[in-house]
Amino acid sequence: MTAATPFAGFEALAYHGGDLAVARRLAPDAPQPWIDLSTGINPHPYPLPAFPPEAWTRLPDRDSVARLEAAAAARYGAPDPAGLVAAAGSQEIIQTLARLLPARRVGVLGATYAGHERAWRAAGAMVERVDDVDRLAAFDAGVVVNPNNPDGRIVAKDRLAALGGALAARGGTLIVDEAFIDFDAAEQSLAPAPPAGAIVLRSFGKAYGLAGLRLGFAVASFEVAQRLRAALGPWAVSGPAIAIGCAALADEAWLAEARARLAADAARLDRLLIERGWAIIGGTKLFRLAEHPEARAVFERLLRAGVLTRPFADAPRRLRFGLPASSEHWERLAAALGG
Amino acid sequence: MTAATPFAGFEALAYHGGDLAVARRLAPDAPQPWIDLSTGINPHPYPLPAFPPEAWTRLPDRDSVARLEAAAAARYGAPDPAGLVAAAGSQEIIQTLARLLPARRVGVLGATYAGHERAWRAAGAMVERVDDVDRLAAFDAGVVVNPNNPDGRIVAKDRLAALGGALAARGGTLIVDEAFIDFDAAEQSLAPAPPAGAIVLRSFGKAYGLAGLRLGFAVASFEVAQRLRAALGPWAVSGPAIAIGCAALADEAWLAEARARLAADAARLDRLLIERGWAIIGGTKLFRLAEHPEARAVFERLLRAGVLTRPFADAPRRLRFGLPASSEHWERLAAALGG
Repeated sequence: MTAATPFAGFEALAYHGGDLAVARRLAPDAPQPWIDLSTGINPHPYPLPAFPPEAWTRLPDRDSVARLEAAAAARYGAPDPAGLVAAAGSQEIIQTLARLLPARRVGVLGATYAGHERAWRAAGAMVERVDDVDRLAAFDAGVVVNPNNPDGRIVAKDRLAALGGALAARGGTLIVDEAFIDFDAAEQSLAPAPPAGAIVLRSFGKAYGLAGLRLGFAVASFEVAQRLRAALGPWAVSGPAIAIGCAALADEAWLAEARARLAADAARLDRLLIERGWAIIGGTKLFRLAEHPEARAVFERLLRAGVLTRPFADAPRRLRFGLPASSEHWERLAAALGG
Repeated sequence: MTAATPFAGFEALAYHGGDLAVARRLAPDAPQPWIDLSTGINPHPYPLPAFPPEAWTRLPDRDSVARLEAAAAARYGAPDPAGLVAAAGSQEIIQTLARLLPARRVGVLGATYAGHERAWRAAGAMVERVDDVDRLAAFDAGVVVNPNNPDGRIVAKDRLAALGGALAARGGTLIVDEAFIDFDAAEQSLAPAPPAGAIVLRSFGKAYGLAGLRLGFAVASFEVAQRLRAALGPWAVSGPAIAIGCAALADEAWLAEARARLAADAARLDRLLIERGWAIIGGTKLFRLAEHPEARAVFERLLRAGVLTRPFADAPRRLRFGLPASSEHWERLAAALGG
């Protein structure tokens, strides 16, 4: 495996991060344990609270889901829990909306998380990438990931509200995926005042470092929320996700500490990369997008050192770096990046 | 609240079991804690195994899902893990199949779990209930819950295989929901040899007493399995469900003990009910369907005693009883049923 040799499995890693299984096959002799910097998940997870065994054993009942949705509405500032819907991850909401909404022509702002385009194409829609946010008004549905993944671009909420209004006037829908807004530009969130007809997505697992739990939320009109709930079915969220979500979403002290810690970690990662000749293109507090002429070769060197980052098939000079979790991980990353 | 007075909320309890929140509102003064006998979930859950924190923190990767599917294939005797698909509960599979399959006319065998009919109607299909299994061959899709919930009726696998063949010859699909087959007629499961074009559903949460975990499986042709996987999306099963499922599905000793214990518990429940003038209509080892002229009055008396059973809107003389979990629960049930 060299920089000059395209290698099997690269597509899987460029498709989305987090697949250590592919990394293990590509670099079977890498030192253990693997350091996974290929995703944008908080490396300092919310400490698991104790919860009653019934969360495991019983079917989650409607009242416990309502408590979770009330906790999420308070956390995200949503105006009414009736318009907030819990699901097993925001990916599940993305897939479900693409089936539920009648949109046939969908615009997606810029290079972004590929899950939106995939879901809409699977639902039979035509999907076009546009680079000007205002152009989204001409589609049946417009998708904005805000802040964007991977470059961190932020669209101001006033501009999105205007776009939402323009779409709604034509019977269209604005979808704003705020998966990475918790620690960046939280004040730009549309969750507290979603424009008529708009749908705002929030991710639990990324901010709280519990991506395996599968938990995410949509904030929408009451009518869309009702249809989304019906489509997700009666037991869409697991008992542990309800119990842990209720505790974590109400914990403002933890959130404040996480915000400070991640800001320091992101700045430290920037310094580490800049000192080694990388340019920071953007990102959020949970990941940094960086550019280097030898990025592909560095990706492969990191892989052989047991460090998985996120390459991009169409941007060979760029890598996305998640945050190391411990001083040992920081040291291994620095050593593997080299001089 | 008397037997003569229809009471608000009854519909919610007759719709499906397990909603203690509704029961609490109906009988706010009932003794605590509530005893929920309204579902068919093993009251002796699989003991939670230790698992690594990464199950909570990481996005579940494809290799760990493949391990879970291999464990399920071994447990259910499925011919090929590639045709076995894990999902967040068999309810999610029911909903997804109703959207994926082109069936417009769907036949459902007898009075059964209402989730099938609901899912197909939500997907725009016409649904008809038939009482003769062979009549299902005339539909685009035929649904058989085997053993049936609530009456426990079992259709022999040879007859289902013939039905599957007749449906497939016309381009139709047989769906066999084996949610309750683990402790009853497991030898009649079609999972080891699904007829061409048939889809077999298995539930994890009921047999293993972990309904809050959300885990279920489909066994199907490779082609249907691929479409189902794509529709469910990349992270359909939570990390804890993967870790716990892998351990539980491989534990044959626990399964043998559970089988013996549940058989004894079901026989004990039958005796308790028969001694009090109930006729046992049927059921499985996880619930018993019983008939009594005063069933509705007994349901309300049990509710006031903090014991929730499962009534049926269209069968006022019948109740379904799950198994009590402890000697205290057995005693409270016996006392509330009266002499």
